[in-house]
Amino acid sequence: MIIIGELINSTRDIIKEKIEERDKEYIQDIAKQQVDAGATYVDVNSGAFVWDEIDHLIWLVETVQKVLDKPLSLDSPNEKAIKEAAKVHNGIPMINSITAEEERYKKILPLIKEYDAKVVALCLSDDGMPETADQRLKIADKLINDLSRDGVPLDNVFIDPIIKPISVDGEFGIQVLDTIAGITDWNTDVHITCGLSNVSFGLPNRSLLNQAFLMMAMDRGMDSAIIDPLDDYMMKLIKAAEVLLNRDKYGQNYLKASRAGKLD
Amino acid sequence: MIIIGELINSTRDIIKEKIEERDKEYIQDIAKQQVDAGATYVDVNSGAFVWDEIDHLIWLVETVQKVLDKPLSLDSPNEKAIKEAAKVHNGIPMINSITAEEERYKKILPLIKEYDAKVVALCLSDDGMPETADQRLKIADKLINDLSRDGVPLDNVFIDPIIKPISVDGEFGIQVLDTIAGITDWNTDVHITCGLSNVSFGLPNRSLLNQAFLMMAMDRGMDSAIIDPLDDYMMKLIKAAEVLLNRDKYGQNYLKASRAGKLD
Repeated sequence: MIIIGELINSTRDIIKEKIEERDKEYIQDIAKQQVDAGATYVDVNSGAFVWDEIDHLIWLVETVQKVLDKPLSLDSPNEKAIKEAAKVHNGIPMINSITAEEERYKKILPLIKEYDAKVVALCLSDDGMPETADQRLKIADKLINDLSRDGVPLDNVFIDPIIKPISVDGEFGIQVLDTIAGITDWNTDVHITCGLSNVSFGLPNRSLLNQAFLMMAMDRGMDSAIIDPLDDYMMKLIKAAEVLLNRDKYGQNYLKASRAGKLD
Repeated sequence: MIIIGELINSTRDIIKEKIEERDKEYIQDIAKQQVDAGATYVDVNSGAFVWDEIDHLIWLVETVQKVLDKPLSLDSPNEKAIKEAAKVHNGIPMINSITAEEERYKKILPLIKEYDAKVVALCLSDDGMPETADQRLKIADKLINDLSRDGVPLDNVFIDPIIKPISVDGEFGIQVLDTIAGITDWNTDVHITCGLSNVSFGLPNRSLLNQAFLMMAMDRGMDSAIIDPLDDYMMKLIKAAEVLLNRDKYGQNYLKASRAGKLD
């Protein structure tokens, strides 16, 4: 499972505050904690700052990579912010995100190519936010075809079906699960990820909903997730799911974690 | 979700001991706890007693129903034990189980008909224990056709695909998930259940594996499970899963449980 740690996001009040205060230690600590807990990528987002997002994003990249030899997920709706952040990023970044919107696609594609970057590809088109699995699959199909045609190795692509809160419509979870199953059936090299916690927005005891949904999504073929890796129980369930889905052969990782007391 | 509480099973040492000691209070307490935790049916099994299984099963039924106005799942490989237990059972029992084995089928069918009973139908035939999803689906198809032909309402039937331990073969979980999806696709009135905890047999931290597998199985269409309802976290995850799968409309049960502090 490829975990993208979601915590360094300026839409969270505490993170916004710490970015403004230039609190290096706090940010570095959250980054390290996420990697220690199993994150492969650390997402950095300063999109809540309208005027100085770019400065803040550059600061986040430099601050985190000063203590971590890990690739970051450069997360912004603003391609200029991604561009500047990529310049100071060490190693191959993940770009979060491209979409099938014509303008966005054109602006982000050159950055992916320049850095041979990993990229989160959102199922979003100029027709707006998709509702059904079929609508999502149509956009995913276009993204896969276009990115492939434009020379992006599909193994670099992380399709994100876009989860909307089930508190808004009880069918939203099922539509995403069916999308994941559909993409998995195509049997391409793309990865499938998602900003999982959105599913539980507006409901109490969100962690339960996130955990349950992640198990279902993994079963349908999702092999990555943008989550809070400090949700300890979720990380344990992921290890269990990998055994159940025969992705952790002979349960080697599971047994190792168990012996180390990490599943208790 | 239709929960069949599995704890009163003589293969568990403590239960065997308490049955032998005729410890009514202990057995009644375990039964009540399971119902309080959400069990619809309470399974009773005295199969570990070779010579006096029938006496013990009758005692279990009478003992449990003395304090609980709930249907029991009469669980035995021995049709005579089920027959005698059904005689003393109040209300409509669940019979655990019929199979597609010719002899077993013939012996159990009259009991189902006599009591208009619910029945767990194991995917087991005279060809032996199935390995693949296809083999299981073939047996499930036969069971559904035969039971339907023989006048058993399909809404009374709980197909159990038979889970084998993934510690034996890493593909065993996936085969059962695919079986559940296949049966669900037929869109009949049958329910799907399973003796869930078998999946984790031989591995440590079994509860994690059971919980993760249950989420996946529910997503594939399973609407019942033979489990330990005293696994509090599993019961919480079930409530979350029912919201995610839109079986709990508007999250009414989930929100009610949350308000009562039962999801914390």
